[in-house]
Amino acid sequence: MRLAELSARSGVSTATIKYYLREGLLHPGRRVTATQAEYDEEHLRRLRLVRAMIQVGRIPVNSAREVLAALGDDELGPGERLGTAVWALPHGPAPDEADPATESARHTADALLDRMGWARDKAERTERGPAYGMLVTAIVTLTRLGYPCAVDDLAPYARAVEQIAVSDLDVVERYATPDEQVEAAVALTVLYEPVLLSLRRLAEAEESIRRFGGA
Amino acid sequence: MRLAELSARSGVSTATIKYYLREGLLHPGRRVTATQAEYDEEHLRRLRLVRAMIQVGRIPVNSAREVLAALGDDELGPGERLGTAVWALPHGPAPDEADPATESARHTADALLDRMGWARDKAERTERGPAYGMLVTAIVTLTRLGYPCAVDDLAPYARAVEQIAVSDLDVVERYATPDEQVEAAVALTVLYEPVLLSLRRLAEAEESIRRFGGA
Repeated sequence: MRLAELSARSGVSTATIKYYLREGLLHPGRRVTATQAEYDEEHLRRLRLVRAMIQVGRIPVNSAREVLAALGDDELGPGERLGTAVWALPHGPAPDEADPATESARHTADALLDRMGWARDKAERTERGPAYGMLVTAIVTLTRLGYPCAVDDLAPYARAVEQIAVSDLDVVERYATPDEQVEAAVALTVLYEPVLLSLRRLAEAEESIRRFGGA
Repeated sequence: MRLAELSARSGVSTATIKYYLREGLLHPGRRVTATQAEYDEEHLRRLRLVRAMIQVGRIPVNSAREVLAALGDDELGPGERLGTAVWALPHGPAPDEADPATESARHTADALLDRMGWARDKAERTERGPAYGMLVTAIVTLTRLGYPCAVDDLAPYARAVEQIAVSDLDVVERYATPDEQVEAAVALTVLYEPVLLSLRRLAEAEESIRRFGGA
């Protein structure tokens, strides 16, 4: 398809597509004349992912480029490609290692992962770096502000996301090829975050009314 | 306590506390001399909440002020105060009513709430406005980008957050007074978001390795 059709089918303006091409977020089309190129379904799929990351996830162009590099790395297996891609997604500030509270938060995070049976050895935790670091940072903040964040407080959340991850991967497995699965996994990680956060607030309102009475 | 002690106990610098006082995010202390004021436990609690909203939640000062106004409104019952405060939290872009996709996303959202038995009548959905709007916007985006977001796809997420909301409210109920409960509810809504999102990514990595093999 030509650029105009790629734009129509993706809902992304031709100016934005050209910007993504210049930034290397989309691989060049197959040149057919000096001024025209031909694009295919893979361009369309990639464009959706780029849009999910940049427009919805507000992920910086550099991080998006890193994610895409991991996805396109043929030397990695699907599991590794997914891990590397999710690793490249932004995760907020890393824990401040100079802060003594970080050490204690790390113990809480480790005790939680132990209880869940996740990432059993230390190397695995380092490998899952950014998400693990984001958890440690969140625990530091909760502790500092005096809000509950013991393992017993965190465990119900971990058990709930365990079910969410099963749904996430069920959706991913509907895609036919490993390439599509890895792309969908990254896009769904980003795109389902607002779904989760909004549903949580709706569920909280529901539960709050159940306990404390109507508004 | 004096300003210096309030700063030490809250971990918030005196300069930041003075800024919050100027912005009306913290009520003035009881003046004891021309240059000194006395602060109490309520200041400390309020300061933790302000910090949670502004520093962690990255909530604009104006929105934080609205949340606090709702919390301090003695004419509202605890349920109403909580609802109004959470309503004032930022929820991302509201759905674009001019977009035909919004109508269809709203049907999906309504069908999901119906299935869950949440916010049964239309007035209630309007009342839960921002979180409901955030859900509709997320569904529009998923649809536009061609990712799955039918009621059957969303229902597992709703069921998982239903359990999360029970944990959230269990934590809130540990606080002694209605004032403290409402403050904690707002703070925990904000502070547990990075906990949830990081745990989801860790759980996804776990589930992914279980299905597709190790990294």
